[in-house]
Amino acid sequence: MKKIAVMTSGGDAPGMNAAIRAVVRYAVRNDIEVVGIQRGYAGLLDEDFIKMNFASVGGIMEKGGTILRSSRCPEFVRKETRKEAAAILSKHGIEGLVVIGGEGSLHGAMFLEEEQKVPVVGIPGTIDNDIAMTDMSIGVDTCLNTVVDAIQKLKDTASSHERAFIVEVMGRSSGYIATVAGLVTGAEAIVIPEIPVNYEALGNKILKERERGKINCIVVVAEGAASAYTVARHLEHRIGYETRITILGHIQRGGSPTAFDRLLASRMGVAAVEYLKRGQSFVMTALQGGKIVPVRFDEVLKQKKSLNMELVELTALLS
Amino acid sequence: MKKIAVMTSGGDAPGMNAAIRAVVRYAVRNDIEVVGIQRGYAGLLDEDFIKMNFASVGGIMEKGGTILRSSRCPEFVRKETRKEAAAILSKHGIEGLVVIGGEGSLHGAMFLEEEQKVPVVGIPGTIDNDIAMTDMSIGVDTCLNTVVDAIQKLKDTASSHERAFIVEVMGRSSGYIATVAGLVTGAEAIVIPEIPVNYEALGNKILKERERGKINCIVVVAEGAASAYTVARHLEHRIGYETRITILGHIQRGGSPTAFDRLLASRMGVAAVEYLKRGQSFVMTALQGGKIVPVRFDEVLKQKKSLNMELVELTALLS
Amino acid sequence: MKKIAVMTSGGDAPGMNAAIRAVVRYAVRNDIEVVGIQRGYAGLLDEDFIKMNFASVGGIMEKGGTILRSSRCPEFVRKETRKEAAAILSKHGIEGLVVIGGEGSLHGAMFLEEEQKVPVVGIPGTIDNDIAMTDMSIGVDTCLNTVVDAIQKLKDTASSHERAFIVEVMGRSSGYIATVAGLVTGAEAIVIPEIPVNYEALGNKILKERERGKINCIVVVAEGAASAYTVARHLEHRIGYETRITILGHIQRGGSPTAFDRLLASRMGVAAVEYLKRGQSFVMTALQGGKIVPVRFDEVLKQKKSLNMELVELTALLS
Amino acid sequence: MKKIAVMTSGGDAPGMNAAIRAVVRYAVRNDIEVVGIQRGYAGLLDEDFIKMNFASVGGIMEKGGTILRSSRCPEFVRKETRKEAAAILSKHGIEGLVVIGGEGSLHGAMFLEEEQKVPVVGIPGTIDNDIAMTDMSIGVDTCLNTVVDAIQKLKDTASSHERAFIVEVMGRSSGYIATVAGLVTGAEAIVIPEIPVNYEALGNKILKERERGKINCIVVVAEGAASAYTVARHLEHRIGYETRITILGHIQRGGSPTAFDRLLASRMGVAAVEYLKRGQSFVMTALQGGKIVPVRFDEVLKQKKSLNMELVELTALLS
Repeated sequence: MKKIAVMTSGGDAPGMNAAIRAVVRYAVRNDIEVVGIQRGYAGLLDEDFIKMNFASVGGIMEKGGTILRSSRCPEFVRKETRKEAAAILSKHGIEGLVVIGGEGSLHGAMFLEEEQKVPVVGIPGTIDNDIAMTDMSIGVDTCLNTVVDAIQKLKDTASSHERAFIVEVMGRSSGYIATVAGLVTGAEAIVIPEIPVNYEALGNKILKERERGKINCIVVVAEGAASAYTVARHLEHRIGYETRITILGHIQRGGSPTAFDRLLASRMGVAAVEYLKRGQSFVMTALQGGKIVPVRFDEVLKQKKSLNMELVELTALLS
Repeated sequence: MKKIAVMTSGGDAPGMNAAIRAVVRYAVRNDIEVVGIQRGYAGLLDEDFIKMNFASVGGIMEKGGTILRSSRCPEFVRKETRKEAAAILSKHGIEGLVVIGGEGSLHGAMFLEEEQKVPVVGIPGTIDNDIAMTDMSIGVDTCLNTVVDAIQKLKDTASSHERAFIVEVMGRSSGYIATVAGLVTGAEAIVIPEIPVNYEALGNKILKERERGKINCIVVVAEGAASAYTVARHLEHRIGYETRITILGHIQRGGSPTAFDRLLASRMGVAAVEYLKRGQSFVMTALQGGKIVPVRFDEVLKQKKSLNMELVELTALLS
Repeated sequence: MKKIAVMTSGGDAPGMNAAIRAVVRYAVRNDIEVVGIQRGYAGLLDEDFIKMNFASVGGIMEKGGTILRSSRCPEFVRKETRKEAAAILSKHGIEGLVVIGGEGSLHGAMFLEEEQKVPVVGIPGTIDNDIAMTDMSIGVDTCLNTVVDAIQKLKDTASSHERAFIVEVMGRSSGYIATVAGLVTGAEAIVIPEIPVNYEALGNKILKERERGKINCIVVVAEGAASAYTVARHLEHRIGYETRITILGHIQRGGSPTAFDRLLASRMGVAAVEYLKRGQSFVMTALQGGKIVPVRFDEVLKQKKSLNMELVELTALLS
Repeated sequence: MKKIAVMTSGGDAPGMNAAIRAVVRYAVRNDIEVVGIQRGYAGLLDEDFIKMNFASVGGIMEKGGTILRSSRCPEFVRKETRKEAAAILSKHGIEGLVVIGGEGSLHGAMFLEEEQKVPVVGIPGTIDNDIAMTDMSIGVDTCLNTVVDAIQKLKDTASSHERAFIVEVMGRSSGYIATVAGLVTGAEAIVIPEIPVNYEALGNKILKERERGKINCIVVVAEGAASAYTVARHLEHRIGYETRITILGHIQRGGSPTAFDRLLASRMGVAAVEYLKRGQSFVMTALQGGKIVPVRFDEVLKQKKSLNMELVELTALLS
């Protein structure tokens, strides 16, 4: 392997830069040339490439976002497009590709190798924690801490007033962030896509907590389950006092990555190059029991990471 | 002066606890007894009082919110209610009152002294920075830093995608927070109550910035000017790409107070007791040119703090 | 099991409060009474006990330190003392004990059960990450993030001057924190107890980096390997420019726990009570591959967690 | 004025980048060309210049340190050297200079104009807050918040043990940071250059606090008054329990600047260019009563900013 390329694709996640840095530096240490592809698959098709070396990834590890930028590229679902992509990579003498991104991006990676025979290694980067077979994806830990900090600020003010606070967090199909954030901040309730919401029960729970003497009330809602406004509308007349809304939005994708995400990304970046170097591809780097291991694309992508329901129970038990 | 009371009223603001601590400890050092009134004017009417001493305010300075809690008390606009409040204070032997809060709370304080002859000193505590005659109110600095941190996180991700981000911040009648937060984060535009919004011009500005090569776009909106959703709806078809919403809500009222707010609150708390001790009341503690000075309630409350328009210009000039 | 006790012992670690909260609340949910023992084994011997209920652990999860306080209790190495402790527990009708702490504290716990037949479950809480058989101990993640934030601040200024910065971090017998912190901040070098320091080689490495064009230089030193002053003295004349010292000290034990530590602590607290409830003791709760499992005291304590040397290599490869 | 230069000099301070950004952008808006001088006066003499434009200061406001880097340049005390500097500036057609730095740097600036007739405007940037005639210098607010965060973490653990913590902070000739940080964290004592330390009295104070029931004890020491180790040595045998040391060092110079520092720096940067544009020089931008005003170099530099002793009293009164 003489030359590889690296890209970030899909929604960005904190820690992606640490992964890019590790890919580039470990490759350079192994005398492999690295090309950075800007703006994901879209940039691949536009040949938006930059040469990367040891120095070009200096001082990026601590930055949120991705220096290679990212984009969504719907046309990559077409086989024709992927064929073109493979031709471009081949033209540039690129023998292997590292794709850092979420489920959609890894699907693109899988097809690129399966059909076009481009050796690809994937790195799971998404704040949603919805990728199977890896204990954690890059960005989840930072995102969680951002959400926890925000809710903690709400609790300061929540205990000064008589109000319910509804916080909408990310999680289109997964309630992981809402559940863990709710659990570790002692939120009064969570609303997640995995469990149909029962507003009657929710309202009663809140009223009951209040009778017990609780003066603050925080409900964490995953965007995939309902909007904060919908929850507020359903609750207000049931609980008889005002609600206030916070929608964190994309601040959940930003921020300097935590130590955990930087470490995970560094280890996965090194592993990705190591796999390519020894001729192993069609795999994603995964964290399993503290170790980084390769897992096959087709195995990862045929399943959905399901939420550990014990966490949901804990949230109810401990708050 | 043998016995005074202290309360927090209206919307809470970070630093209120530091003010309570300073009031209590400075009073105790001067052999003045202190009663804490819980839940503002509502708690006054309910005689929801607690005795406070040196130890009861230990470890509270760093906490957001207010340990005395707060509430809105609409019935306090009635003279009858204020008469009742004065009678309660008198019954408890309370000779002076310190009210920490925003404009509405200070109005209540003014009438309480004017009509009922209760000696009151006010301390300006509100994140809105809309109280006249003081350079800053307690809570503004912390709130600003919370907003700036959030927008900074957005900028990480903003520069990874092609999107416009609309951030709604507090400020019902004042654009101070939106303006300064926009200025110090280099936001592309601000929407504030002081200036009628022109969506056509706003859209054009964003398009022009983009032609100049800017890849991120952040618009900071004060809640008093428009909702983030309204701004988004007006912009999307004009700029031709997607927008994303963040509504910070009450997280802006929380958080451990900054060094500035703790210092300001400590100095104002001490000054308030000092004024009462020397027989000066019907005043608010104010920060003017680095010094804490007393300003008369009637002078403060007859005016509105207007936004320094140079800050608005700076935002446009430097971004 | 009708009544249990919980204590924190040894050096405190962020997240201990989340563990206490989980122990108390999960016990209460299972109709088990909980006694809080203050100041660890010393408090046990003094019968410094408080009754705990659902409300008494409200709002503590986010706090650093431990509300039960902690202490070192050297006399607990004596069998006589442990016999006394068992008698006290028995007198109070306490049928099981949860001990949250580091290696020394868990040794005490082991002997208490082995000799005195008190059912004990341990929870690993220490920032050193030196407890075997568990992937992580409570407090490590928070500590790492504190160190990383501090070093990141140094990097700002380091790149503005021509100086070397020596940062001394915790780790009496383990270089884990120094290694990971060095790795995820791109520090130029680490000095850890696991590897004898060679100042000649260290000086040469720094000089070489500088020739490559690096303008900042940060060396992270574990307290168990050398003091920052010693490292500085050895380096200054070798590298020919000034060094500056930072000693983080006990700020590494403080701070609001991260999401990770709160989650880990909550899960371990629940597991500890669950084990006692079902008659399982003489075990420590351990994190293995994402699951909480019981591991026997004698197995945990006969080994030492050794540092993953791959991390040390990564630090050198990527910086 | 067609062309000006900007530099940062001496110890760096958070917010310097915001000042550079404002200088460059406001100059560009006024059709004035800007040259960035790297590494302060040393870089001036080496003609280490870079052309700056609107884009070259994008995304720097939030960064600690200074993108122009800084250095100390002892030879600038010589008149010959300053003559050379003036010749270089003239050769490059630079008609005005903005110097961002502390007292030493402003002295250089003053002589450069006085003797060599180079129009210079100074901007006070130093974390020490020791520059006269301005309420605040750039960097002080960020530094204070960094110190406060660190001490707050110590307090978590301090209240878990029986120990005294000695924290050494910056302040060679000024106790401002130690005093305010001590005041707003409720530290038990401060040791500052302005007041000769009496270890006997300090020890007694700590013992007395302890008798009152305080379990934590934090002493904040300005580096200019004593080293943390000296204080520890003097205290330990007097108070009879252990001390622990934290030396924050240069982390106090780093970190993303606070909203306050960014705003102050932005306003001062704009003012500096405005002064040069209208032919006003030999002045420093100063914050007085919320306004930015020009003050003459000779007036500023003939005095020393003295510490407000009321703050010292407050620290004692309220803790």
